[in-house]
Amino acid sequence: MNMTGIETLRWRYNKLEMIDQRILPGRFDYIAYDCAASVAEGIRSMVVRGAPAIGCAAAYGVALEALRLREDTLAGFAEKLDLGFKSLAESRPTAVNLFWALERMRGVWASMGTAEPLQIAGRLLQEAHEISAEDIRINRAMGDFGAALLKDGARVLTHCNAGALATAGWGTALGVIRSAKAQGKQVSVIADETRPFLQGARLTAWEMVQENIPVTLITDNMSGYLMSKGEVDAVVVGTDRVAANGDVANKIGTYMVAVLARRHGIPFYVACPLSTIDRSIASGADIPIEERAPEEVSGFRDCQWAAPGVAIRNPAFDVTPADLVTGLITEKGVVLSPNSEKIAKLFSS
Amino acid sequence: MNMTGIETLRWRYNKLEMIDQRILPGRFDYIAYDCAASVAEGIRSMVVRGAPAIGCAAAYGVALEALRLREDTLAGFAEKLDLGFKSLAESRPTAVNLFWALERMRGVWASMGTAEPLQIAGRLLQEAHEISAEDIRINRAMGDFGAALLKDGARVLTHCNAGALATAGWGTALGVIRSAKAQGKQVSVIADETRPFLQGARLTAWEMVQENIPVTLITDNMSGYLMSKGEVDAVVVGTDRVAANGDVANKIGTYMVAVLARRHGIPFYVACPLSTIDRSIASGADIPIEERAPEEVSGFRDCQWAAPGVAIRNPAFDVTPADLVTGLITEKGVVLSPNSEKIAKLFSS
Repeated sequence: MNMTGIETLRWRYNKLEMIDQRILPGRFDYIAYDCAASVAEGIRSMVVRGAPAIGCAAAYGVALEALRLREDTLAGFAEKLDLGFKSLAESRPTAVNLFWALERMRGVWASMGTAEPLQIAGRLLQEAHEISAEDIRINRAMGDFGAALLKDGARVLTHCNAGALATAGWGTALGVIRSAKAQGKQVSVIADETRPFLQGARLTAWEMVQENIPVTLITDNMSGYLMSKGEVDAVVVGTDRVAANGDVANKIGTYMVAVLARRHGIPFYVACPLSTIDRSIASGADIPIEERAPEEVSGFRDCQWAAPGVAIRNPAFDVTPADLVTGLITEKGVVLSPNSEKIAKLFSS
Repeated sequence: MNMTGIETLRWRYNKLEMIDQRILPGRFDYIAYDCAASVAEGIRSMVVRGAPAIGCAAAYGVALEALRLREDTLAGFAEKLDLGFKSLAESRPTAVNLFWALERMRGVWASMGTAEPLQIAGRLLQEAHEISAEDIRINRAMGDFGAALLKDGARVLTHCNAGALATAGWGTALGVIRSAKAQGKQVSVIADETRPFLQGARLTAWEMVQENIPVTLITDNMSGYLMSKGEVDAVVVGTDRVAANGDVANKIGTYMVAVLARRHGIPFYVACPLSTIDRSIASGADIPIEERAPEEVSGFRDCQWAAPGVAIRNPAFDVTPADLVTGLITEKGVVLSPNSEKIAKLFSS
């Protein structure tokens, strides 16, 4: 139960069910998964998206795989389960929560020594549930810290969807909005539509309409204009990976929003659970940026509009340097003007 | 004949025909017009768009109106023709070429005293033809000045469509590209798709593919990323109105591109015929910014994807302050770091 009415992922009778985010908001439906490879394909094709939700899905994918294997030996089981981990790890490259969750699941598996596969599967499922439950608790904590940064009446611009649909529930950036509302503040949202996958127009707008939080949709090229007119009080976004120095990878376009926010003196906050911080990477330059298929840019779904013969680029993420980030909102509090030192301290305290 | 093979507007047997730019590139078709009100509707609904093309269309609209009137008195004729001017003037608010062309047509009309309506119509048509022919000559001149600014191999980002389709032919920003190619330079284009009307994906990409000029399509939120990776050498855009101080109104999103270009030390050029400079307006703050219908933002054509219940903003233009403009490319040469003084001098020399 995540208090939003939106169960992005749910466990039902030995299957994982995920809301198909490709068809929202026109249709609302779940797709059922019963093995690691199919969950990996669900992640790759963006049935589920959003860094924390991808981490949860991968954890359940591991549990599903352990549950379905019927090998004759423990070594055979281990070999096949390892392939399951690999297929999940190869689904998408940028969001670090995927690798974080897989590593955690691998640790649990390793701790079980020569236990029976069924015992291992049970323990892995328990861990997947725990990762999901933790995600919601963490989002609530981040939400409370973040909401304190927003004034009553704040008009908050967000890019992409970092809501309940991007997490196990509540949301990171939209969790801040939900918490502000829960604190009795009147806040409104300006949602970048977020081409090419339109997470803003389809998912953020849908979540906010469901919550009765005022939300205004714009195309991605309009935020600078609204900022120049004094119509944006703060920016809050999620993130797919934060480097050790505080550089932030997030949905393509985030960097442009951050540069414009700085120009206009508007605070730029990133809602970031600790699981999204990758301390093994020194700076954003080393974060792998996924390039996706050209068909996403040449149109949307069956509606294709680009001139035939044009070349296409489709980087799915960009990197916002730490010096443009007013604050990282974490479950341990807000890190203002993040840098390597402050981020290291987060993990030691 | 405009040397591009694309006749955006053409006069045929007492009718004006305009390429329907709403259905490009999937379909290529002309719509015929026979009065001022229908041309005004064609401008409003974006059958024709682009500041110089709108100016040409309005001029032909006046000629069409003069040609079709069958009033009993010269006073009646004048009254009705005046209504034609008014309906054209009310079609779209931002592009100043519309008002510039109407004023020029009004001057011609005024110069004819009590001539017969047929004589007036003939003279107005001649002036509309002259405005179109001039536009092409001016674009060629701007193209040559602008092309000299581009290095061989330059990768040029453009926003919206300032090509043959936005003018009587050749184009303003894309005219610079065409002229660079004509000068033997290898140049390539990066086209912002330009939501919501997708002029970049549909029109700029189409024009460049037709010309065999390498063109890469991106969504509007990707230009900052490409700049940060060193993949953009220059930005060239068109404009709908330039204020006396050099502030530039252009398609929504231009401002964000300009801010990012400055951050990355990339030159930002605006191809701007003198007819687009509005010396009656001191700064960009006074340029009227059109807000268009929400349906353009909630989807594209019949493909609607936004969550029902979301509010929508749809400003069609924004203002880039003169201090972000590396140079205005005009038919009289390039004005580097434009300001009021330099612009005033353009008109006195």
